[in-house]
Amino acid sequence: MPLASRHLLGLDGMPKDDIQLILDTAVSFREVLDRPIKKVPTLQGKTIANLFFESSTRTRTSFELAERRLSADVVNFSSDVSSVRKGETLKDTARNLEMMKIDMVVMRHSAAGAAHFLSQVVKANVINAGDGAHEHPTQALLDMYTMREKFGKLEGLNVCIVGDISHSRVALSNIYGLTAMGANVSVCGPKTLMPRNIEQLGVKVFYDIDAALRETDIVNVLRIQLERQERMLFPSLREYRQYFGITRERLEKAGRDIVIMHPGPINRDVELSADVADGNSSLILQQVLNGVAVRMSILYLLGTRT
Amino acid sequence: MPLASRHLLGLDGMPKDDIQLILDTAVSFREVLDRPIKKVPTLQGKTIANLFFESSTRTRTSFELAERRLSADVVNFSSDVSSVRKGETLKDTARNLEMMKIDMVVMRHSAAGAAHFLSQVVKANVINAGDGAHEHPTQALLDMYTMREKFGKLEGLNVCIVGDISHSRVALSNIYGLTAMGANVSVCGPKTLMPRNIEQLGVKVFYDIDAALRETDIVNVLRIQLERQERMLFPSLREYRQYFGITRERLEKAGRDIVIMHPGPINRDVELSADVADGNSSLILQQVLNGVAVRMSILYLLGTRT
Amino acid sequence: MPLASRHLLGLDGMPKDDIQLILDTAVSFREVLDRPIKKVPTLQGKTIANLFFESSTRTRTSFELAERRLSADVVNFSSDVSSVRKGETLKDTARNLEMMKIDMVVMRHSAAGAAHFLSQVVKANVINAGDGAHEHPTQALLDMYTMREKFGKLEGLNVCIVGDISHSRVALSNIYGLTAMGANVSVCGPKTLMPRNIEQLGVKVFYDIDAALRETDIVNVLRIQLERQERMLFPSLREYRQYFGITRERLEKAGRDIVIMHPGPINRDVELSADVADGNSSLILQQVLNGVAVRMSILYLLGTRT
Repeated sequence: MPLASRHLLGLDGMPKDDIQLILDTAVSFREVLDRPIKKVPTLQGKTIANLFFESSTRTRTSFELAERRLSADVVNFSSDVSSVRKGETLKDTARNLEMMKIDMVVMRHSAAGAAHFLSQVVKANVINAGDGAHEHPTQALLDMYTMREKFGKLEGLNVCIVGDISHSRVALSNIYGLTAMGANVSVCGPKTLMPRNIEQLGVKVFYDIDAALRETDIVNVLRIQLERQERMLFPSLREYRQYFGITRERLEKAGRDIVIMHPGPINRDVELSADVADGNSSLILQQVLNGVAVRMSILYLLGTRT
Repeated sequence: MPLASRHLLGLDGMPKDDIQLILDTAVSFREVLDRPIKKVPTLQGKTIANLFFESSTRTRTSFELAERRLSADVVNFSSDVSSVRKGETLKDTARNLEMMKIDMVVMRHSAAGAAHFLSQVVKANVINAGDGAHEHPTQALLDMYTMREKFGKLEGLNVCIVGDISHSRVALSNIYGLTAMGANVSVCGPKTLMPRNIEQLGVKVFYDIDAALRETDIVNVLRIQLERQERMLFPSLREYRQYFGITRERLEKAGRDIVIMHPGPINRDVELSADVADGNSSLILQQVLNGVAVRMSILYLLGTRT
Repeated sequence: MPLASRHLLGLDGMPKDDIQLILDTAVSFREVLDRPIKKVPTLQGKTIANLFFESSTRTRTSFELAERRLSADVVNFSSDVSSVRKGETLKDTARNLEMMKIDMVVMRHSAAGAAHFLSQVVKANVINAGDGAHEHPTQALLDMYTMREKFGKLEGLNVCIVGDISHSRVALSNIYGLTAMGANVSVCGPKTLMPRNIEQLGVKVFYDIDAALRETDIVNVLRIQLERQERMLFPSLREYRQYFGITRERLEKAGRDIVIMHPGPINRDVELSADVADGNSSLILQQVLNGVAVRMSILYLLGTRT
C-alpha cells in the first residue's frame, strides 16, 4: 500500500496507516545508518531540490544526508542566493524547478501554507520542512519514531508539549500526529503563548508545569525563540525559566520517570537545564539520529510511489 | 567534427556549424530529460567549478543540474564566500583552480571580458555564464533551440528583442547567434536604452513596439532591471509598460501569431503582462527546460573534445 | 602501520613516521591527479562534513575536491548559514553531526584549540583546517611535500619563514613539522610580530631579512593580514615591504638559489613582489596542486584506519 498522498505537507488529517507505514519503513533505514556503508541506490538518478527560505543548519543537513544516502542528486537553494531577492514569485520559482525536471522539492518557508501552494503548482513531490507557524511534519514524525522506539508503542502514551504553543509548527504537527496514533497529548505554557480553543484539537491544557508533569511520560520541550521575547509576549527569560523551565528538581518533584525531548537547537538553561538535556532521560540526540532515518523513509516512500 | 574552440566565450564570430552542432546534440540530451533516470555517465571523474561572482539562482541551478546529470563532480563558488573578498585577483583564483586540476569552469562575472581573460590564463574549458553587459551565450543558444523546436528552423525567422538593449548581454548574444543562423533580427526599446550604431550588427531598430510586432514571429522580452530605473534611464515603470510592455491587447492589435520568450525572472505586468507570460503563446517554461539540455550539450561537446 | 592518532589536530608532537607516511601516501594520490579520471572509490559511502566557521575559498575547495575524488559524500557548512547564529554551542553542533553518522569532520575555527575540543566530544575523525593562531597542519604537510618533491629530502634543508610569526598558524605548524623531520628552520619578521621565546621551538630568529636569506634554501613567505595592520602592529605596508618584502633584488643580493613558497592568497607587491611570485623559483602553484594530494592522503589514512 503506497502513501495516500504524493506530498508530505502536514500531519493534519494524515491517515493512521500512512504514519504507521512511514515509521515502519524508517526502521530499515535506521539499520542502514549503523552500517559502514550508509548508502543505498534507491533514488539514483532522481533530483531533489532543497529550498530553504529560512535558514536551518540542522533540518537542511538532516535532509541532505538522507537524500545523499538514498543516492539522489541534490541541489541546494537558500534565501540568500535565491532569485526571490529579484522579486520572483514562489510560483515562478516552483515552475522553473519543475521545468528543470526536479523530482522532489523539500521546502522551508516563513509563510504558513507555502508547501501546500507549491504542491498545487508543481508535479514534483513536495515535502514540507516547516511552513511558518503551521506544520513541520518530518519533525513530528521523527519525534513519534523516537517515542515509539523508547516505549514500543504510541497508543496511550502521555505526551506533554511545553513552551510557546502559539507560534510552534513543531507543537501543531505533534498534536495532529500523536492524537491520530492514540496518544494522550497535553500542552503547557504561558497564557500569552497559548492559542485560544486549542482544546478543540483534542489536547489538555496546563498553565502549571508541575501539574502537567505529574501526568506525563514524555515532555517535548519547545525552543524559546529569543527574538520573540523582545515583542514582550513573555516578561523575561528569568521568569520563563522559573515558571516553565524543565529542571532536574522539577522532574524529581513530579515523582515519575519522564523522558525529555527537544527539537533543537537548545537554549541551555532557559527552556531546559543543561544537566537534564545531557542526562540519562534525554532522547534529544536520539531524535537527531532518527531524523535522518525518518526522512530517508519519507523520501523513499514518496520518490518510489507510482 | 569537434567545436572550433575549446571554450564558449560568446556567439560573436562563432561558426554556423558550431551553433548547429550544439543545437543538434542538445536534442539527444533533451530526450534524456524525459527518462525516469535523467543521468548519463559522460563526464564521470571530471570536475567542474561554478564561479558565480554575481548571484543567479536560475542560471547556476540550470548549469549545476546539467553537470550532475552528466555525472561530473561539481564545486560551487559564489561571490560571498570567495577569496575575492581577501583581494585576490581573478587571475590568481583561476590559476589556483587550474592547479587543483579542475577540468571546466563556468563563470558569471560583472566585468565584460572576464571569461575571455580567464580562458587565456587557464587550461580548463571556460564557459561564459554572463560577463557584464557583454555576452550570455548559453542563454542565446537555449533561446535559439527553443525557436528552432517551435518553428523547425531559424533561417528566415523574424525575431524582435524588446527592452533595455544597451545593458543586455542576452540581447547581444541573441543578435550574434540569430544573425549567424540567418534569422531576421530587430530590436525595440526606448532611445535612452538603445546602443548607438546597433544597426551595424545587422539588426533593424524600432522605437515603436506596435510597428515592431507587425513584422515579428517571436518577441524575446528582456527583463527590466528595476534597480537601473533609479538612475533615470527611463522615467517610470508605468511609462515603460505603457510604451513597451507586451500585453494581450498589443499582441492582438499586431494581427499575427507571435510567440513569447523571456530569459526570466519576469517582472510580471511590467515588461510582460502576467496573462501573456502564462498564455498559450508563451515558450518561457520551455526555455527553462531546454536550457538544461543545451547546457548538457555544451558541457559534453567541450568536455569530450580532444 | 596506521597513523598513531585518529585525528589530525596539529603537527606538535606528531611522530616522524606519521609525517613520513602521509607524505609517502600522497605521492600515489598526486599521480591520480594526472589521470583523465581523477577519482578513486576509496571513501565511497563515507560522509564528510566541512565546517568552516571562518571563510576560506582555497582551503575549503582543496578539501572538497580531495573528498569528492575519494568518492566520499560531502556536506558543507559555513558560518553564515550555521545554527551558530542561533546561539548553539560548538559542542551541540558537533554532537548533532555525530548523531547524523558523519564519519569525518574538517573544521576551520577562529578559536585555538577548537579542533582539539571537537575531537574529545565526537567519534568522527577530526581534521584541523586551521584553529585560530594555533595550527594549520594540512598546510604545513603540503608545504613539506612540496619541499621534499623539490629537494628529494627534508633533512638538513634550510627553511626560513618570513612575516607575522606571532599570529600565524601556518608558521607554527611548519615549525613543528619541519623540525621533526630534521630541517633547519629560521623565522624572520618585525619584532612586534615575533613571539617571545620562539627560539625554544628550535628555530633561529632573524630580524634582518637579508641576513636570513644568506642562509636559506627555501623562503616560506606568510600572507600579511591587511586588516591587522590597522591595529598598528607594524607602521605601514610601505615600510613592511621595504624591510621584509621578498623582491628579486633582495634574492639576487643573497647570492644563492632560493625557492619561494607562500600559502596564498598573495598580497602581490606587499610581502612578495609579483615577478618573484610568478617566477621560475616559485613553487606556489605547485603547493596548490600538492595540497589536494596531501589532503587525499590524510583523508584516506584516517578514513580507512581501523
